[in-house]
Amino acid sequence: MDTSVSRTLFSQRANRLTSSAIREILKITERPEVISFAGGLPSPEGFPIAELRAAFDKVLATQGATALQYGRTEGYTPLREWVAQDLSRPGLDIDPEEVLIVSGSQQALDMLGKLFIDQGSPVLVEAPSYLGALQSFSQFQPEYRAVPTDERGLVPEALDDDLVRDARFIYVLPNFQNPTGLTLDRARRQALVERCARLDLPIIEDDPYGELRYAGDPQPGLLELGRPAGATVIRLGTFSKVLAPGMRLGYVVAPRPIISKLVQIKQATDLHTATVTQMAVHEAVRGGFLREHLPKVRELYRRQCGYMLDALQAHFPSDARWTRPEGGMFIWVTLRPSIDTAQLLQAAIQRNVAFVPGAPFYAGAGAPANTLRLSFVTVPEDRIRAGVRTLGELIGPAPEHA
Amino acid sequence: MDTSVSRTLFSQRANRLTSSAIREILKITERPEVISFAGGLPSPEGFPIAELRAAFDKVLATQGATALQYGRTEGYTPLREWVAQDLSRPGLDIDPEEVLIVSGSQQALDMLGKLFIDQGSPVLVEAPSYLGALQSFSQFQPEYRAVPTDERGLVPEALDDDLVRDARFIYVLPNFQNPTGLTLDRARRQALVERCARLDLPIIEDDPYGELRYAGDPQPGLLELGRPAGATVIRLGTFSKVLAPGMRLGYVVAPRPIISKLVQIKQATDLHTATVTQMAVHEAVRGGFLREHLPKVRELYRRQCGYMLDALQAHFPSDARWTRPEGGMFIWVTLRPSIDTAQLLQAAIQRNVAFVPGAPFYAGAGAPANTLRLSFVTVPEDRIRAGVRTLGELIGPAPEHA
Repeated sequence: MDTSVSRTLFSQRANRLTSSAIREILKITERPEVISFAGGLPSPEGFPIAELRAAFDKVLATQGATALQYGRTEGYTPLREWVAQDLSRPGLDIDPEEVLIVSGSQQALDMLGKLFIDQGSPVLVEAPSYLGALQSFSQFQPEYRAVPTDERGLVPEALDDDLVRDARFIYVLPNFQNPTGLTLDRARRQALVERCARLDLPIIEDDPYGELRYAGDPQPGLLELGRPAGATVIRLGTFSKVLAPGMRLGYVVAPRPIISKLVQIKQATDLHTATVTQMAVHEAVRGGFLREHLPKVRELYRRQCGYMLDALQAHFPSDARWTRPEGGMFIWVTLRPSIDTAQLLQAAIQRNVAFVPGAPFYAGAGAPANTLRLSFVTVPEDRIRAGVRTLGELIGPAPEHA
Repeated sequence: MDTSVSRTLFSQRANRLTSSAIREILKITERPEVISFAGGLPSPEGFPIAELRAAFDKVLATQGATALQYGRTEGYTPLREWVAQDLSRPGLDIDPEEVLIVSGSQQALDMLGKLFIDQGSPVLVEAPSYLGALQSFSQFQPEYRAVPTDERGLVPEALDDDLVRDARFIYVLPNFQNPTGLTLDRARRQALVERCARLDLPIIEDDPYGELRYAGDPQPGLLELGRPAGATVIRLGTFSKVLAPGMRLGYVVAPRPIISKLVQIKQATDLHTATVTQMAVHEAVRGGFLREHLPKVRELYRRQCGYMLDALQAHFPSDARWTRPEGGMFIWVTLRPSIDTAQLLQAAIQRNVAFVPGAPFYAGAGAPANTLRLSFVTVPEDRIRAGVRTLGELIGPAPEHA
């Protein structure tokens, strides 16, 4: 190509884009010799391949012309109905019209950015928060405000008038948060929805991992607690972790006026989510398949988490701290303040071990340099042990008199 | 729901959104008694259901874990290679790295809006142009500049310094344009790419229908003519019309610096396009299936177009003019200036016939009120004749001495 495109033709938004640190790391970790705790991939051992194969086949055999045609922007009606019913419980009645099917919940984040964010709009995010959400929101140039967290997760009392003033929403992952693995307890959930209701602050509740709980007691969702409290809760869910991510299928549950706007946005964004995958997933789940499938996935993840926790106990120095997730895919490690995990990563990659440094998960300034995220779900037990031992060696023992 | 969301929380962008006229019309036309020329749906008679069913089955049987896992943002490598090879010809060598797979070409329009448009950025569109593109671009609040067209389509000589000043791109559908059905001839294509090269104006070439030519001679694409001329051409293609739209699968071909930015944007937008559909489509097309499949689709569309042209000749007044497409799905009709097609539509719907008035396809002011778009591909012959006769009656004969 002789042609070059002048940067002056690109939008400001595009000129600010840079390749993400995690993306560059993941390229390195594709080498088979690397023990990677960096990924966010679910374990393919949990994919119900035979069931999905049968579902695609049945749909194409019996409703092929419908499955291959354009569909409604809102989503395939029976799948919306299934989602509504799956989320409804005593005291929480979800209507299918409150459900929008999206092309993975990442798309929901992009569309919510379009819906809520003008340049400079304040938005509230946990510190730290999901990197993919920050990337989506950043396209629309918000002003991030970090909500303080402690070892129990987000601190609702921090939401005061100053922090919330003019904010468009708060973005929260209440279950087994990415990246920390922390779960918000019931008292904090209740305090959060009540405060947001009083402050007229919409809550985006992102819950990709909620069905992957393998320890502790299930907590009511922010949607469930928020409605009676008068809070506006926008709940994001996905089939990526309970079935498989390669179909790119998720959903948004929200009050009708928000769904209505999101439908207009989705029409301009990609018309609708693929019909054939929506119909196949509906075919796979409609008979109650997840009731037998999910316990197997939870047991797999519980076992993998245990391998990692045991290895950390055995090989990490006594001054390191880490979270003990009740579900999901991630453990968050805090090392002594003198260690910069970005530098640690460089050394680790030399020895074929990878993880994600913690700093990119913080939206604003003041990110601590001594944290890291470990994903444990796709690595075999012996490689978890070997990789954690290598990291422990690189970190070194706690200084005496520390 | 007791909650309501204040408009002040929405972005300016979202508050400007209104439901599209066409969308509202399409709701009405879902009633089976309506003869609808309003749709843009391809004919399901052209869907290779058995072949796609076999392709999904083979992919899930032999590569299930890969098909159901997250994939690269750029797209499934063998499918990128197939697209590159399919578009390459003597003098035009496309590299797979210049191909990005997208979730239908509507998504490409959304991402190109993100890439190029700041609030107030001038962008050039044909008058009239594809409504879905206008909806995508409008999310980013450009200043539209209409490029004049005549009965041969876009007029390249209209692209002067004033019209092009500070413009981010020109958006063109050179084959069987939506909505006019017009095809740009070779001389105009050459003039267009040379002018754009000289003016440093990127061209977005949207070609959803190019493979659906059933009359006249194929014309070289703007990508093919543009590269040697030094123009920056971004080519959009889709599997929606050659296979089926329900899989939401399209592609962008562009110089690497543009692909690289679009990959970053796509990562923030939906991570990647569904792996399973990409692999199934690759499985379906890789053996050369389209070479035998496309002639059948072209013949179907040619026949349908003929029914509509015959009916117009028989039933429309002598002062009506319409285009004679060499391919694609649409005929564009211009009625006498005294007729407002928005009003005509109201009357037509009372008699169970639908079409799309022409005005929404114009981005700026000055849209003529006496045009309309007719889609002919999904309506049986007898209903085409009946529907066109009804419209002819409503329009009425040409006034004497006209």
